[in-house]
Amino acid sequence: MKRRSQTLVFENRPKLIAGMSVVGKKEGDGPLGKYFDRIEDDPKMGKNTFEKGETAMLTEAVEGAAAKAGLKISDIGALFAGDLLNQLVSSSYAARDLPVPYFGLYSACSTMTEAVALAAACVNAGYYETAACATGSHFATAERQYRFPLEYGCQRPPYAQWTVTAAGCGIISADGDGPAVTHAAIGRVVDYGITDANNMGAAMAVAAMDTAIAVFVDTETSPEDYDAIFTGDLGRVGSEIMRDLCREKGAELGQRYSDCGEMMFSAKQKCYSGGSGAGCSASVLNSFILGKMNAREYDRVLLLATGALMSPTTSFQGESIPSVCHGIILENDL
Amino acid sequence: MKRRSQTLVFENRPKLIAGMSVVGKKEGDGPLGKYFDRIEDDPKMGKNTFEKGETAMLTEAVEGAAAKAGLKISDIGALFAGDLLNQLVSSSYAARDLPVPYFGLYSACSTMTEAVALAAACVNAGYYETAACATGSHFATAERQYRFPLEYGCQRPPYAQWTVTAAGCGIISADGDGPAVTHAAIGRVVDYGITDANNMGAAMAVAAMDTAIAVFVDTETSPEDYDAIFTGDLGRVGSEIMRDLCREKGAELGQRYSDCGEMMFSAKQKCYSGGSGAGCSASVLNSFILGKMNAREYDRVLLLATGALMSPTTSFQGESIPSVCHGIILENDL
Repeated sequence: MKRRSQTLVFENRPKLIAGMSVVGKKEGDGPLGKYFDRIEDDPKMGKNTFEKGETAMLTEAVEGAAAKAGLKISDIGALFAGDLLNQLVSSSYAARDLPVPYFGLYSACSTMTEAVALAAACVNAGYYETAACATGSHFATAERQYRFPLEYGCQRPPYAQWTVTAAGCGIISADGDGPAVTHAAIGRVVDYGITDANNMGAAMAVAAMDTAIAVFVDTETSPEDYDAIFTGDLGRVGSEIMRDLCREKGAELGQRYSDCGEMMFSAKQKCYSGGSGAGCSASVLNSFILGKMNAREYDRVLLLATGALMSPTTSFQGESIPSVCHGIILENDL
Repeated sequence: MKRRSQTLVFENRPKLIAGMSVVGKKEGDGPLGKYFDRIEDDPKMGKNTFEKGETAMLTEAVEGAAAKAGLKISDIGALFAGDLLNQLVSSSYAARDLPVPYFGLYSACSTMTEAVALAAACVNAGYYETAACATGSHFATAERQYRFPLEYGCQRPPYAQWTVTAAGCGIISADGDGPAVTHAAIGRVVDYGITDANNMGAAMAVAAMDTAIAVFVDTETSPEDYDAIFTGDLGRVGSEIMRDLCREKGAELGQRYSDCGEMMFSAKQKCYSGGSGAGCSASVLNSFILGKMNAREYDRVLLLATGALMSPTTSFQGESIPSVCHGIILENDL
């Protein structure tokens, strides 16, 4: 196994054999609605708090993905999971009901690709036959934790993003059918000096560029070598910055580039710059992207999920917003 | 690489080649004071907030460990780090100044052994030549985030624990001198039904027992096969429960068992049941334990760091406290 700068190479080609996405009503009403496995009308999922609803959504995603892969939960070697709630409680409380070794991860909205990177690394090395990667986010829990209570009715700037209510789970396996995870590029933390916590797309765009360029250099590829390139949740504002930053580095992303956050909502849904949240790239990967790859519409995809690593406390203390991006390359066997 | 239930086997014997501990004044005044590398009298480390002080302590631990290992920061393959602050900000802001690929981890007070497990797994598999594992915690930041503002002067129950102000970093390397990380046992999330957030030792003891028994079964060892067994931060109350729970399962821990939280403070320091926090096992591993292993006072050690996975929000919502424990086995080459 060679280490090429930031990019890990998985030569045993662990496969993404199943994915499950569970989303809220608003996400189901959006352009990707038909790709999601399950659309839940009740944001509390029948529980008495939003946080418990978020946990239930994540549990449903893991159980659904395992079932699609033909696995019992106890067959899964390990669960790699994280979320946006303080102390990772939706993942940890979901894991309480899933009797498998549990790695808690936090990389904000890039947690899905961190999870896939580590799960694929462990499966590729033979530590596990199968591993589950799961993340989620919830509009109502994120708003009150990071910004304002919903009841306050805070006005948003046009570059703000809307936290996606969604959970996604993928099963990585040494054997089976599905696209292979061939590489993972682990991001460095970068900081563009953005201090406005509503402008996360701009803060994260530089991290997306940094990791994209690392992928291109480390794997000796260019954007044209991919059928599609996705960022996690830069939104409309951040993805335009991403295009410009990559162009400055000599990489023209072109038509093959989309952003999961931008894809999630239509303009008439009034979600400003687009969707965000750990559940955004997680649900798009495990529904839309996996579906298109299994249908052979794409054979090689680069997914660059991005995370803004601030907290309300650091924002109050005047800090700028550091960001990170972890990338994964998915390839069909040809 | 065989997977034996919960325990990963690292047959290439990646080494813990250097460790660095940075602690606060109270920790420096405790029984382990002489083992720590650096004792900082200023809890803000010259910064203007406790959070920035915590970040500075973590940065100092990583830089110090790299220097002891004779490495430049840019030589390190990846940083595996986490902490107790919301959104992992002390790790993420420390990583901003360290230009290496960064894996954010959260496993509460068991983050150090999660980090060592993943770093050793990646070094053992050849993904990285060297990796850094770092965690920290801070009394002042944890108190105000998890419990009450310091100014409130809240009275504590006798079974409460005192969050340790400390950071620790270890460098795992494919080559070099130091004890080998031969196994890592990844914990499942368990829940004993404890709802009192002051009684974390009791909540975590069952997780420690669960992983300890997994280690003994998976590696066909018993407590007598280790020169020393440590739990992370169960404190006096939790470690007595741990002894009893293991005894019920047929494993008599005996004199070789100690708890890092109990070791951290003397009775006259009025820290109730003992120390806690992610920095507790991190600083003890990278000073006391590593030192005793390098001096050949111990040749085989089992470290079981434990984490309580609740948040203030889940406590307010009446949830009990799920816990997890990740164990690592360290062995000298004989």
